[in-house]
Amino acid sequence: MVNVAVLGYGTVGSGVVEVIERNNVEVSGKCGEEVHVKYILDLREFPGDPYEDKVVHDFQVILEDREVSVVCEVMGGIKFAYPYTKQLLEAGKSVCTSNKELVAKHGAELLDIAEKNHCSYLFEASVGGGIPIIRTINHAMTPERIEAVAGILNGTTNYILTKMEQEGTDYAQALKQAQDLGYAERNPQADVEGHDACRKTAILASLMTGRNVDSEKIFTEGITEITTADFAFAKGANMTIKLLGTARLQEDGSVLAMVAPHMIAENHSLAMVNGVFNGIFVTGNMLGDIMLYGHGAGKLPTASAVTADVVDCVRNQGKTLPCHWEQAECRLADVLLTSKRFFVRVKAQGCGAIEEAFPGSERLEVPGMEEKGYFTPVMTEKEFEEKYSALSEFVLGRIRVM
Amino acid sequence: MVNVAVLGYGTVGSGVVEVIERNNVEVSGKCGEEVHVKYILDLREFPGDPYEDKVVHDFQVILEDREVSVVCEVMGGIKFAYPYTKQLLEAGKSVCTSNKELVAKHGAELLDIAEKNHCSYLFEASVGGGIPIIRTINHAMTPERIEAVAGILNGTTNYILTKMEQEGTDYAQALKQAQDLGYAERNPQADVEGHDACRKTAILASLMTGRNVDSEKIFTEGITEITTADFAFAKGANMTIKLLGTARLQEDGSVLAMVAPHMIAENHSLAMVNGVFNGIFVTGNMLGDIMLYGHGAGKLPTASAVTADVVDCVRNQGKTLPCHWEQAECRLADVLLTSKRFFVRVKAQGCGAIEEAFPGSERLEVPGMEEKGYFTPVMTEKEFEEKYSALSEFVLGRIRVM
Repeated sequence: MVNVAVLGYGTVGSGVVEVIERNNVEVSGKCGEEVHVKYILDLREFPGDPYEDKVVHDFQVILEDREVSVVCEVMGGIKFAYPYTKQLLEAGKSVCTSNKELVAKHGAELLDIAEKNHCSYLFEASVGGGIPIIRTINHAMTPERIEAVAGILNGTTNYILTKMEQEGTDYAQALKQAQDLGYAERNPQADVEGHDACRKTAILASLMTGRNVDSEKIFTEGITEITTADFAFAKGANMTIKLLGTARLQEDGSVLAMVAPHMIAENHSLAMVNGVFNGIFVTGNMLGDIMLYGHGAGKLPTASAVTADVVDCVRNQGKTLPCHWEQAECRLADVLLTSKRFFVRVKAQGCGAIEEAFPGSERLEVPGMEEKGYFTPVMTEKEFEEKYSALSEFVLGRIRVM
Repeated sequence: MVNVAVLGYGTVGSGVVEVIERNNVEVSGKCGEEVHVKYILDLREFPGDPYEDKVVHDFQVILEDREVSVVCEVMGGIKFAYPYTKQLLEAGKSVCTSNKELVAKHGAELLDIAEKNHCSYLFEASVGGGIPIIRTINHAMTPERIEAVAGILNGTTNYILTKMEQEGTDYAQALKQAQDLGYAERNPQADVEGHDACRKTAILASLMTGRNVDSEKIFTEGITEITTADFAFAKGANMTIKLLGTARLQEDGSVLAMVAPHMIAENHSLAMVNGVFNGIFVTGNMLGDIMLYGHGAGKLPTASAVTADVVDCVRNQGKTLPCHWEQAECRLADVLLTSKRFFVRVKAQGCGAIEEAFPGSERLEVPGMEEKGYFTPVMTEKEFEEKYSALSEFVLGRIRVM
């Protein structure tokens, strides 16, 4: 019998207990021995909860119990999760987590501690919820030089953008609907400003290169400036707008990583990823592109991914599951020097200025709309930003084009 | 150092050698030790080939070489591959294969032999080419009760159907184009009659249930009867036509498995899977749907999947990688008793007869086309076939609707 402890009895934590209990035939069957939740760590009491007798308030109880060999850290944040995870791994207990903040910040170090103590630090649920993207990179694409990842990594912002696209809802309304449905938090900043997608991009970029990508150095732009007018122009060009997290290996060995809204062709596979779903492309030098798609968040999909990690830990007790992510820092390419096309939205009286600043641009009109849109030719971010900022009296917004 | 042998120096075999050699930094790095191709078994000589010195003609050389611990069986067919694989596994050598015919027919038995000899039998490349669908079922969805799989599993037929849809090419022409491009074989029967998709469906259904699904008992219908007229009606209904392999767990524990062309909504994720690409949905009771998409065939993607299996074997030497697929037979549901809607194409003079036979049907017209289309209400296959066969003087074709 394997005893598991769950740190944090919130949405994901209660989901993990539910998956292990409701699907115990599957979970224990795949492990080859019975899996049992022994402790749930939470500050609160849960009177009437079917598992209230498992709730403890003292982390030491779990740390010191030699019967506990696998711990699910689903409390989130850094303050407690970081020292707890360290101590557990140092005690030789494997840790499975959905905590992208902690993984992005200390993943390389925690993997190293796990290896030294013959246990595992697994984090499938930290990116893409129930989508097995971490396993795909670590175990399926092992023969590949991974050249790029690109994905819709945040369900909240994708829900908002989908509402704006499909129902013409404006940004503020769409955000409010997402909050009412529990898809967005009361303080939505981490999602709408792109920070959540940025952490996930850092994790994917680190696994792709084997070196640590610092999330704080990734160029990150959120969706707060996107308007229904942008969607009208996108539709006119058979495109849509998605918040993408991307990382691409450059010829010089550096990585170009960024999080930003992009206009993408409406027949691109990522354009079909709507609502709270996530979709992730990975490109290998032999395999070409593969895409994974599924529930990027939600209690049970996320809990299922954490539990799959538990199964892997049980199947591999006493050894460390391989994960190439060194603490050495990965060199990031300068986004300003990269080239692409841009979509620019301008006031009607700005057309002349735009056409002069961006010769060769392609003009877009939407019937009934006075403002105009332009697709610039391919140019560097630096050149674009210099010209764009000089046109501030005319321009209404700009979006990168993929 | 790990020595690998490759059985069969055809498309996939030369791809495996290429992946191991060209990406040796990645492959050896992920294995933690150097991986080296020691032998290539083939009847032919390859004068001038950079690896001609590795070619041997006698299987015994490989079987008896204690230095060889992993063998890639990429020769295809049953006649030699089956006894060779058995002998290798009995000698404790792990076998990685792309041979869906052998896996579908003898997978459960070969897995059992591997387990008894503390080695592994892995077959990621047997379904979906470079798409990691086997790993997703065996290692990522371990906590799940898998309720259904549904996929576009054959790139050749998907290429043909995509040509017919997008360019209005008729079936015979599209098949010829596929043959000219090397996507279809001179004798295309295994693909166009659905047998290849059927074997892959049997493998997925076996892994989904843990019991052996006999591919010869799966209801299988190919694409040879699909016409450009069908696509015209599909388009008129915002749908398209795809050859799907499906397996769904029934309430009584049996599995409904079938391979047949289906009309599907054009905004369904599988409708976006075009050309030689494959796409596979898996539904878990906790996770919901996930979809994987990528190159379903082709030299390097398939070889990459075989090589990923090699890496897994090296990482887990002396143990058997878990795969739940017993020899006990899985009970299959009777397709005739299942219910769905059907699309029927009829001569103009048959409309009255159709409307009488299938009351509540929805009529479809395509401008400029004399024949008509109908969507029947939901009914059992049995009831449909009885009525449909009585209308043979009027009807021109029928397709299931998903």
